[in-house]
Amino acid sequence: MNIVVVGGSAAGMAAAAKAKRTNPSANIIVFEKTKYVSYAPCGIPYLFMGLVDGFDKLVYYTKEYFISKRGIDVRTRHEVVKIDESEKSVVAIDLESGREVNVNYDKLILATGGLPRKPNIDGIELEGIYTVRNLEDGERLHETALKSKVIAVVGGGFTGLEFAEAFIKMGKKVLLFQRRNHVIRSMDPEITKIIEDELIKHGIELHLGESVVEFRGKDKVEKVVTNKGKYTVDMVLASTGVVPNNNLAAKLGLKLGSYGGILTDEFMRTSNPDIYAAGDNVETKHIVTGKYVYIPLAPAANKMGRVAGDNAAGGNSRFPGIVGTAIVKVFNLEVGRTGLSLREALDNGYNAVAETIKHISRSHYYPGHKEIYVRLVVDRETKRILGGQIVGYEGVVGRVNTLAAVITAHMKTEDLSMLDLGYSPPFAPVWDPLVVAANVIERKLK
Amino acid sequence: MNIVVVGGSAAGMAAAAKAKRTNPSANIIVFEKTKYVSYAPCGIPYLFMGLVDGFDKLVYYTKEYFISKRGIDVRTRHEVVKIDESEKSVVAIDLESGREVNVNYDKLILATGGLPRKPNIDGIELEGIYTVRNLEDGERLHETALKSKVIAVVGGGFTGLEFAEAFIKMGKKVLLFQRRNHVIRSMDPEITKIIEDELIKHGIELHLGESVVEFRGKDKVEKVVTNKGKYTVDMVLASTGVVPNNNLAAKLGLKLGSYGGILTDEFMRTSNPDIYAAGDNVETKHIVTGKYVYIPLAPAANKMGRVAGDNAAGGNSRFPGIVGTAIVKVFNLEVGRTGLSLREALDNGYNAVAETIKHISRSHYYPGHKEIYVRLVVDRETKRILGGQIVGYEGVVGRVNTLAAVITAHMKTEDLSMLDLGYSPPFAPVWDPLVVAANVIERKLK
Repeated sequence: MNIVVVGGSAAGMAAAAKAKRTNPSANIIVFEKTKYVSYAPCGIPYLFMGLVDGFDKLVYYTKEYFISKRGIDVRTRHEVVKIDESEKSVVAIDLESGREVNVNYDKLILATGGLPRKPNIDGIELEGIYTVRNLEDGERLHETALKSKVIAVVGGGFTGLEFAEAFIKMGKKVLLFQRRNHVIRSMDPEITKIIEDELIKHGIELHLGESVVEFRGKDKVEKVVTNKGKYTVDMVLASTGVVPNNNLAAKLGLKLGSYGGILTDEFMRTSNPDIYAAGDNVETKHIVTGKYVYIPLAPAANKMGRVAGDNAAGGNSRFPGIVGTAIVKVFNLEVGRTGLSLREALDNGYNAVAETIKHISRSHYYPGHKEIYVRLVVDRETKRILGGQIVGYEGVVGRVNTLAAVITAHMKTEDLSMLDLGYSPPFAPVWDPLVVAANVIERKLK
Repeated sequence: MNIVVVGGSAAGMAAAAKAKRTNPSANIIVFEKTKYVSYAPCGIPYLFMGLVDGFDKLVYYTKEYFISKRGIDVRTRHEVVKIDESEKSVVAIDLESGREVNVNYDKLILATGGLPRKPNIDGIELEGIYTVRNLEDGERLHETALKSKVIAVVGGGFTGLEFAEAFIKMGKKVLLFQRRNHVIRSMDPEITKIIEDELIKHGIELHLGESVVEFRGKDKVEKVVTNKGKYTVDMVLASTGVVPNNNLAAKLGLKLGSYGGILTDEFMRTSNPDIYAAGDNVETKHIVTGKYVYIPLAPAANKMGRVAGDNAAGGNSRFPGIVGTAIVKVFNLEVGRTGLSLREALDNGYNAVAETIKHISRSHYYPGHKEIYVRLVVDRETKRILGGQIVGYEGVVGRVNTLAAVITAHMKTEDLSMLDLGYSPPFAPVWDPLVVAANVIERKLK
């Protein structure tokens, strides 16, 4: 059988590799538009910081590895331009030679990923304004950043914060513009305040509640104009979100969701049973709300790819959805969130309440213990834990993951307050911050 | 109402504090035999290492705090010698004055803790052989350790390892004797091998599979005799486990379990409805097996105390049991376990299988990533995850806690393989070690 995969990033290569394992005799062909496959765009900011020595280090497995070791036919610099559902065929253009390549498929997997959301701002097409999704974007951005002195980052989401820090560590002056009054939309302001203080402390010029209305310049961008002022800059990184790359899917008439992402069942099958989709081009079920959401993150993309590849090759796997777990390092701060923020919970119709506690990461007498803030979002009626946000200087990530499991398992406040978490003075106080947070919010609910 | 608490360590003080919160007009009296209440014996090894500056630092809240700020009548250096069920009265001896104190109770809470298990070895009564449970034990042990050059630790459990490391950091020569062929009974040898290598690397003379048969000496211990040899030592720490301090409970005829611990319901009520029990003197339900077990650890003791105190004062809380989560630092290694080991699973009649994987703690390209080993124990029939053991140089504890939640929630391998765990290069690879371990064992089960 022929399985054709469109897109060779996380989801696409996970799909291809798993399909081959499930059905070793299958013929797997991957078309990837850029020169890289199986790469980690999340590593780009760390390369800018000098922690990663070359873009090739951000590749998990090379094209050659997939071809020679895994028996997968990987074609980079190939852009799929047409899919014929009735013929079950794909047309790709070899971007080197310009030649057309035609292949037939039994099963097709769309892993076309996401595209940077281009904000609708005057002057956005000027030279010197960048977005970043893949390694080639990263290479271009890096080249210009090296020559720039003042860099504006538009958008205070996870990616915006990572690049803002990277530019600071490159010795640049960094202006961060965020339209809303706080960074990270999916977290509540009670927690993001701590993150904002950390950004300012490390020299980022933070402009909250400030909308960019125009980019100005002759040959290239020279000024950022906002509702509050004008700023001279050398370059701009627009980091205002991601949208599903749904071009091919839309042409095929596959069912799309309200965010423009492809809708699939839990087997990652689209509305055409011979076409699967996985990664940042699909919408997925939120395990708390049961609704389709668009939260494009790498772990889910990989897992969806694995499920799509397995099923396309005759296996039987399910992708249960996500709880929106995301973590990020902001200078010395560890930041994480999972489930719903209070705003998200209220928007979804829950009678939700939230409480933030401050505790310490280790026993009070053990040297080096740090402050840690835990915020829980709970449904008043069922006492179910809907979400959690944690910020601190250590011990954050493991606790966020623990909450991800707690939320996935539909646990209630009393379950968390009695959860058997580990204790040892170098790692945790005897009453873990998660348990304390559960106890405090339980008291509030009484 | 009068609530009398016997024992002022973790469980007792948690019970007293919660009872007062639940019923502020209740009269709460705590009798504690030693001079300390609300202390952290787990901190003693770190004091020996020079990380904690004085035994008073290991006290969470002082007697004076409880009396003046919380309105709890705390009486240290008072030993309860008699309880009369029909009169509902308690007799305590003031160890300073020798006088008898009589009080009546409406509800009684037994929080008498555990006692060090004294191994049945010839010469165990010699001077220079120590056990440690409370801060006063720690003070005596410290005084002798300071004057000793060669110290034998008998028992390679969590506490034995912590003290062995502490003695090394005090500059002592340390011999660690472990009757079984591997350290930490509740972990499998596939994982403890890594811990044993760490102990040896840091200078501990490790004697595995070696039983101590006699202690010899004139005025004090001078030699440890095993089934394999004789060793000259200056002192001995016997760290061969804990048994429930069930003296008063046995006299009262309260129902005890097979480990000698008091049996309670989930409200922490003993077989006498006016008597509660909490902490290291009780047996508790294992959430995986549903059977009573005796795993005396501080987080459970605190939680049980809280539940007992609440209910004794008229509240309504439940303690659901434990999954046996335990973590420990062994030199530079982080070690943790939760649920059942393979041996425990097999002993409990499960058709269990285990698999150990090696992965890295962060993205491969992010500097400082460390090896991490994850072992999962799974029931072949239901695919339910029964237990997990993790060892590595970072990122262990949070993953153990995540597994604790996974196991408490009765998740299966496919749930863990699809769990939405956080990803960011400084903190985790995109396929988290927990997810990889689940994928690997899933493949084995097919």
